[in-house]
Amino acid sequence: MSFQIISKKGLARRADLTTRKGVIKTPCFMPIATKGNVKALSNEDLIALNPEIILSNTYHLMLRPGQAELEKYGGLHQFMHWQKSILTDSGGFQVFSLAKIRKINEDGVTFNSHINGKEYFMSPEDSMDIQLSIGSDIIMVLDECVELPAKREYLEKSIELTTAWAKRCRNHLNTKTEHLDANKPKLFGIVQGGTERDLREKSAEQLKAIGFEGYAIGGLAVGESEEDMLSTVEFTTNLLPEDKPRYLMGVGYPHQIVEAVKRGVDMFDCVIPTREARHGRLYIMENEEHIMDRRDFYSAINVTGEKFKFDLSPINAKSKFPELRNLSKAYLRHLFVVEDPQALRLATLNNLEFYLGMMESIRTELEKVTNN
Amino acid sequence: MSFQIISKKGLARRADLTTRKGVIKTPCFMPIATKGNVKALSNEDLIALNPEIILSNTYHLMLRPGQAELEKYGGLHQFMHWQKSILTDSGGFQVFSLAKIRKINEDGVTFNSHINGKEYFMSPEDSMDIQLSIGSDIIMVLDECVELPAKREYLEKSIELTTAWAKRCRNHLNTKTEHLDANKPKLFGIVQGGTERDLREKSAEQLKAIGFEGYAIGGLAVGESEEDMLSTVEFTTNLLPEDKPRYLMGVGYPHQIVEAVKRGVDMFDCVIPTREARHGRLYIMENEEHIMDRRDFYSAINVTGEKFKFDLSPINAKSKFPELRNLSKAYLRHLFVVEDPQALRLATLNNLEFYLGMMESIRTELEKVTNN
Repeated sequence: MSFQIISKKGLARRADLTTRKGVIKTPCFMPIATKGNVKALSNEDLIALNPEIILSNTYHLMLRPGQAELEKYGGLHQFMHWQKSILTDSGGFQVFSLAKIRKINEDGVTFNSHINGKEYFMSPEDSMDIQLSIGSDIIMVLDECVELPAKREYLEKSIELTTAWAKRCRNHLNTKTEHLDANKPKLFGIVQGGTERDLREKSAEQLKAIGFEGYAIGGLAVGESEEDMLSTVEFTTNLLPEDKPRYLMGVGYPHQIVEAVKRGVDMFDCVIPTREARHGRLYIMENEEHIMDRRDFYSAINVTGEKFKFDLSPINAKSKFPELRNLSKAYLRHLFVVEDPQALRLATLNNLEFYLGMMESIRTELEKVTNN
Repeated sequence: MSFQIISKKGLARRADLTTRKGVIKTPCFMPIATKGNVKALSNEDLIALNPEIILSNTYHLMLRPGQAELEKYGGLHQFMHWQKSILTDSGGFQVFSLAKIRKINEDGVTFNSHINGKEYFMSPEDSMDIQLSIGSDIIMVLDECVELPAKREYLEKSIELTTAWAKRCRNHLNTKTEHLDANKPKLFGIVQGGTERDLREKSAEQLKAIGFEGYAIGGLAVGESEEDMLSTVEFTTNLLPEDKPRYLMGVGYPHQIVEAVKRGVDMFDCVIPTREARHGRLYIMENEEHIMDRRDFYSAINVTGEKFKFDLSPINAKSKFPELRNLSKAYLRHLFVVEDPQALRLATLNNLEFYLGMMESIRTELEKVTNN
């Protein structure tokens, strides 16, 4: 079984997802290695943090180092020295958010690099090929990412396009990986439809008819309220197969992840722990025993603030990383003030340890259910 | 004995320098932790690199975090979590090179911070007090740093001032550390005099008359030719006591360090390995067996160059750091291209491992002499 449910609590599931690189215990959080590294972290840091899967961004990698380069490097795993699973997005989200789009039509999307203006064309087939060159273990279909709020007609049309592209991705990947037998990468479809229940339903039905190894919920955390986001998650997971992993793209704050787990989501990625770290925002575990039932299980501080100037308490006394135990908040603040790049690493390490530890606590709590 | 010579080869000495933090095997290189950290390195990196002494900059520390702050932190060792020796410069060099100087007179120097323009005054006594607040194990006297070329009369006057200040530093530190018994920090004098033999002689004689635990050669590597620098080193070490450590400030390239060791220098610091690392310049050991007798024992590459795009060889196959063995030059180049701060760490680690390894090879070679 490539997705085996171990225990359940309400809609929440504790499961094992098996890729060609090994088992991923879910619910899981995927640290983001945007450009082939979790920014500011060392390779040893990532190995020590020990996530079972990380996410990397196809759009960034196709620009730098480039698809042909990645093939010469023997794929991203070898290039960045990472043995466990990698999920890549399709490139679509960054094309729509970062690049200057020239044209989108049924064939694909023509865009200009945000780095040097160079023109690129990406079809659904191209996205599959690039992700194959990267060597990802979980490949995402190319979809159109619609910014919310959007007109209903636009959302409807977008779902049609997303479904058509999803079918082309499936077919192309099947052909390209026919020879790989048990060693195939997985392909995940992406349910779109904004916060409209019937559109999500339509999208989910069409994707299920094609058939994927997992289903993502896309197009959320793009400006809608937390309430709308969570209710959309809840009715969408109910539309998805029980026996396949569900991945909520780009979410979110710690309590949002917990709430989404309770609504049946298995996989997460988000820039929050890493991006906010680089601005000095540190997440702190306050109550590990009650993650699932109280929102105040964590807090966050801005360590660059004046109030931490004389705070000689450790960055995190309970960390498994000696530096987070040995160095003070005042010292970390000083590193931010003098703009030492090491500040970015320490803060990133702190936040990813928090996020991954939170997921572990969630899994432990879900495992307890079966044992009772 | 706080400075014990183990063996000699020509003018070169292999010695043990003992501070209140432990033994420093010389000849040694002191990595620069300008603002209380070796920029971009982690605390664990520094501990693993294992220098027996590092250098930190009084000017930078007095501005940020500040003297009063450092006292509240219990000194720099505790703040940055570093147990071994720390040498601090007097602040003078940066005052003269970075700050906007308002006024220099016999009392001291009035200057404006290069960060926010705030006015500071530093007397020789102030420099001692700040270095005591930092908690340094080797304290440098405040001297005037004259840019070369300089008029002879200016150099002469400058030596008078430097000697007067050195005397005040010695007296003030003696008073302030009277109670510390065996636990006193050391104080080093700084010989000035440009490339003029008689001025260096005058400066050395005056400083020896005051009496210091070590003698630095200052005012070199500030624009003069390598030949002038090395000949000045040679005649200056001959002016210094045999039984005290000699420290050549701010030098230099690997072969310059070797040449200065051959001319009787024991201690070095330099920004080259760390600063150049941050621009992608990597030092590579080519011939560890012949460091003392051939200049081509090392090479340097600019890893950001196009020619390293497909260089999948390790950053350093012989490194003790797994990442320098496991990651390729092409990957390090990629990290530089996408501006990941981790690039700065890996390059810095490579260069400091090179410099410290070079010093170890030099010491081994000098130790062999006695055994023959």
